[in-house]
Amino acid sequence: MSGTTELLKRVFIGRAIASNRLGETLLPKKIALPVFCSDPISSVAYATEQIVLVLGTAGAASLLGLAAPIAVAVALLLAVVVASYRQTCFAYPSGGGAYIVSKENLGDRAALTAAAALLVDYVMTVAVSVVSGVVAITSAAASLAPYAMEISVGFVVLLAVVNLRGVRESGTAFAFPTYAFVALTFLLLASGVYRALTGGVPDAASAHLALRRTATSGGFLTVLLCLRAFASGCTALTGVEAISNGVPAFKKPKSQNAATTLVIMGALAISMFGGITALAIATHARAYADGNPSVISQIADSIWGRSPLFYAFQAATAGILILAANTAFNGFPTLASILARDRFLPRQLHNRGDRLAYSNGIVLLAAVSVALIIGFNANIEKLIQLYIVGVFTSFTLSQIGMVKHWKAELSRTTEAAKRRIIRRSQAINGTGALVTGLVLIIVVRYKFLAGAYLAIAAMIVIFFLMRAIRGHYDAVGAELAPGPAGVPLPSRNHAVVLVSKIHAPTLRALAYAKATRPHDLTALTVSVDDEDTAALVAEWDERGIGLPLTIVNSPYREVTRPILDYVDRIHRASPRDVVTVYIPEYVVGHWWEQLLHNQSALRLKGRLLYKPGVMVTSVPYQLRSAQTVDPERA
Amino acid sequence: MSGTTELLKRVFIGRAIASNRLGETLLPKKIALPVFCSDPISSVAYATEQIVLVLGTAGAASLLGLAAPIAVAVALLLAVVVASYRQTCFAYPSGGGAYIVSKENLGDRAALTAAAALLVDYVMTVAVSVVSGVVAITSAAASLAPYAMEISVGFVVLLAVVNLRGVRESGTAFAFPTYAFVALTFLLLASGVYRALTGGVPDAASAHLALRRTATSGGFLTVLLCLRAFASGCTALTGVEAISNGVPAFKKPKSQNAATTLVIMGALAISMFGGITALAIATHARAYADGNPSVISQIADSIWGRSPLFYAFQAATAGILILAANTAFNGFPTLASILARDRFLPRQLHNRGDRLAYSNGIVLLAAVSVALIIGFNANIEKLIQLYIVGVFTSFTLSQIGMVKHWKAELSRTTEAAKRRIIRRSQAINGTGALVTGLVLIIVVRYKFLAGAYLAIAAMIVIFFLMRAIRGHYDAVGAELAPGPAGVPLPSRNHAVVLVSKIHAPTLRALAYAKATRPHDLTALTVSVDDEDTAALVAEWDERGIGLPLTIVNSPYREVTRPILDYVDRIHRASPRDVVTVYIPEYVVGHWWEQLLHNQSALRLKGRLLYKPGVMVTSVPYQLRSAQTVDPERA
Repeated sequence: MSGTTELLKRVFIGRAIASNRLGETLLPKKIALPVFCSDPISSVAYATEQIVLVLGTAGAASLLGLAAPIAVAVALLLAVVVASYRQTCFAYPSGGGAYIVSKENLGDRAALTAAAALLVDYVMTVAVSVVSGVVAITSAAASLAPYAMEISVGFVVLLAVVNLRGVRESGTAFAFPTYAFVALTFLLLASGVYRALTGGVPDAASAHLALRRTATSGGFLTVLLCLRAFASGCTALTGVEAISNGVPAFKKPKSQNAATTLVIMGALAISMFGGITALAIATHARAYADGNPSVISQIADSIWGRSPLFYAFQAATAGILILAANTAFNGFPTLASILARDRFLPRQLHNRGDRLAYSNGIVLLAAVSVALIIGFNANIEKLIQLYIVGVFTSFTLSQIGMVKHWKAELSRTTEAAKRRIIRRSQAINGTGALVTGLVLIIVVRYKFLAGAYLAIAAMIVIFFLMRAIRGHYDAVGAELAPGPAGVPLPSRNHAVVLVSKIHAPTLRALAYAKATRPHDLTALTVSVDDEDTAALVAEWDERGIGLPLTIVNSPYREVTRPILDYVDRIHRASPRDVVTVYIPEYVVGHWWEQLLHNQSALRLKGRLLYKPGVMVTSVPYQLRSAQTVDPERA
Repeated sequence: MSGTTELLKRVFIGRAIASNRLGETLLPKKIALPVFCSDPISSVAYATEQIVLVLGTAGAASLLGLAAPIAVAVALLLAVVVASYRQTCFAYPSGGGAYIVSKENLGDRAALTAAAALLVDYVMTVAVSVVSGVVAITSAAASLAPYAMEISVGFVVLLAVVNLRGVRESGTAFAFPTYAFVALTFLLLASGVYRALTGGVPDAASAHLALRRTATSGGFLTVLLCLRAFASGCTALTGVEAISNGVPAFKKPKSQNAATTLVIMGALAISMFGGITALAIATHARAYADGNPSVISQIADSIWGRSPLFYAFQAATAGILILAANTAFNGFPTLASILARDRFLPRQLHNRGDRLAYSNGIVLLAAVSVALIIGFNANIEKLIQLYIVGVFTSFTLSQIGMVKHWKAELSRTTEAAKRRIIRRSQAINGTGALVTGLVLIIVVRYKFLAGAYLAIAAMIVIFFLMRAIRGHYDAVGAELAPGPAGVPLPSRNHAVVLVSKIHAPTLRALAYAKATRPHDLTALTVSVDDEDTAALVAEWDERGIGLPLTIVNSPYREVTRPILDYVDRIHRASPRDVVTVYIPEYVVGHWWEQLLHNQSALRLKGRLLYKPGVMVTSVPYQLRSAQTVDPERA
């Protein structure tokens, strides 16, 4: 890395941090709530909109009223999932993500499926939350709408930089936008109730939009419509699993505190989601095709007008959504690091960077999210279609894993009271598995063509990629394992010094090669041009180097191949010996200087690596410009 | 290079050719004419248009008649330049390009100026000739006009591939379009005279175009206009110097044959240019802003109509122009190779590729030409403004060099008859220098803002770049020159074997290092993670390797820096010794496999190169997938 890059890195990422500063700060519930729940709570900012959007496309204004029963179904589902994950908090005090629970209880295949689902899920969390946060901004400032994509990309880059710096999420930074969003949402609900009791709730700006399609009717079609709307409304559940992952970060009693926080979060999410949906029905708010302005902002606008309160609410919405994206920047690199440790992903993802963050995972997540945001032109309504299938895949696998977990516990326990508690937990997780599995089927069925097929395809690709990577590492590991006999000592060492010109690097390489006292020493040159070679030989003789110069001809003006052939001949003649090729290299200081010198040494070294029984020794000669370059920084 | 790349290369470029097949075929005059003169003769396809274009912008229809005296002036200039270059043919039988003549007679600075001018000139020849050739095509088939840029780029790529194949210009391939163009042009002139004698010459399609600007009048403005038109018309002279470069390719008597061919070429060019200009005046042809359809095609159209003869003429025009571009694909790489040999350009430009062509020069020329064509959107009228300043710079320097050459000859000769001949030659070249110098001033003055400033800027940049490159090579050469005392033999060799895991590559590296019988041998590992290191030490002891494992800690999880520090400590303790660092590397076969393994070895090797007194030895261990890869192709 050059000095400039290094400087930029230090400015944006900060100074390196030593390993021993890696530690965990324990969080009280009131801080843990905003840290882990910005993702699930922020989901209410777009979940209602998804239901309204589906019902709106059906075409009959009367159908919009169906939002109420659908919201109730979603809220019930949320309650079931919260109850299920409470069990996980108790069963896995060291953190029970879907990958770990599946791996322990269901085996590698299920674990990899869960992992693939989670990886996709994290990417979608970043894309959806950031784009949705930007919608909150453009809903308040319409003039920014044309730049929604650029602003979204900017936020992702900002999140990546912040996380590369490895700043531990300070509780207060998380607390403020989260609590502000919760408080303002409840204030909005209260204002709505007050308006309803006094003069009536005013219509939203979009209330009188033309309905998009011709009206459909008939009972079966209405059921289908409800299922589609329900599948869309399930976006309210995204992020619920975060707490069960983070149990170790809670103050003691960890599991109890985590479970309590989970219940608080569930209660908040359900009431906020229900209230917002009720207001959407009351204001007759409709969703726009590009999601801008959002339904939730329309509601706030119609109830508060463009007052400071409205702008504060939009700011808090944007803030909590960006924070939600940030949680994925914690989760994705950590999961990728665990998968890399288990050799399912490239090991580069397991290394911590200068600032103790999993830098490669952060960069990967940011890159994929940015690609998605650009590819979908920051259209929230299209992006969100890819979201829930991954979420419910991991929910279902996690719950099935828990059912198995309790079964195993049951077989280990004889005490009747304990068995009853375990049975109860198993029943809760069984219900969770059943319900989330059913929802998964609905989601796949009714979201497939809308975009879920892309997420499913990505999951399948990631699944098989991870299997292939593991297979590769296993094969390499088996090949590299030393046999019980060890490695035989090579009998003799043939040194070959490459000569292109007679200059100081060549002479140094000859001296060094002699110093290693090889069995024999050859000075080898490749003749590309007869005149040049004749001049070289004349100078060689004149200098009295005391060693014959071996010349190989190269009719095709290649330098590398004749050397490889020469080395091959030695190796074939005595396969148990070593051939050491000494390459004199002069080292210049700057990349533009390197352009001016043939890169044949690098190419030759690359090819010699493929020759068995050959060692390749670089004998560097540092020019003055190279000596001014600090090698640690070079 | 991977197998696929290699295969593609073989399909498009062909099999490698041995050095001893490099030879020169000698050309008779009738083949040499098309080989060397496609460039100057093809210039008549656009030179008249340039004059008409300038006069057309002036705004008064009457001014178009000024084309006649201006054409006469250009023709006279052409005659003077031809006479001057005849002298060069005799003085430099081994080829007298502007760079060589300037270098021998005027020194490095003038030679570099000439070289910079020629390099720019060659690029412009490709861009202008190809785009102009495509105009000949789109003039006949207007529906292709929107794709002019793409077609032009396609032709440049085609020329590059043909030249990378190194196909020697077969005389007949050149002869046909050139002679066809000459013959059809004279037929056009004859048809024009016939029409003039019988019914009168019909107007061109553009004859009644509105004049672009308000009319100007007044003597001084008319003079300025004439100078501008003259400067534009000088494009007729581009390529005249080609024969003087190519004297060695002529049959004996080389110089005489070259000089005769030059005169024939001059006579053809002058009569064709004069005739076309006369027809342009007679048909009142005007130039379009984008040069499409061209003036010469309008003339052919108005005289022949859209007859087969018209289409044949357009095809021949396109053909000779593409061939003209091809001459630059010979000239540029050859000149670049000479400049690289003289260390003014990177030495990569001096190497012949697989097919004996100067591949890097060909690729460079094609890349820059394509960039120009795209940058100027294949607009011939804009591109051509950059052309002539380079041409006349090299003309002028070449002629001044010849004057000096004759002066030197004169001082060596006492015989009166010979001195008279030399004086005559000197007078001719002196006139040439004076006239071309004057034209250069006119061209710079009246073309500067139209685009010549870009060419001048490019020449200046190239000039200083070449000086800087030479300076760098000289400095490196001085530093690398071995002192008279030679290089002292290092006293001792400290071997350091890097250990990350205990696997076969590590054990092999240890065995190899032992085989070189170093003064001492250290097995070194960097501890990034305490647990991993403890496991490594346990396995190390268990295996009974019989050598202690040295551990250095790395609090910042870096692998490279602690190794560099360790090596530094040894070097500082005994600066006259060598440290050899052995790096076990396992070699996988495919690039995607390499992605799965940390690239730390490569990075470490790169950094160790900057450490004085350190040798770096790779001990490769080929995995099975690497053994199936042919190293010659890898």
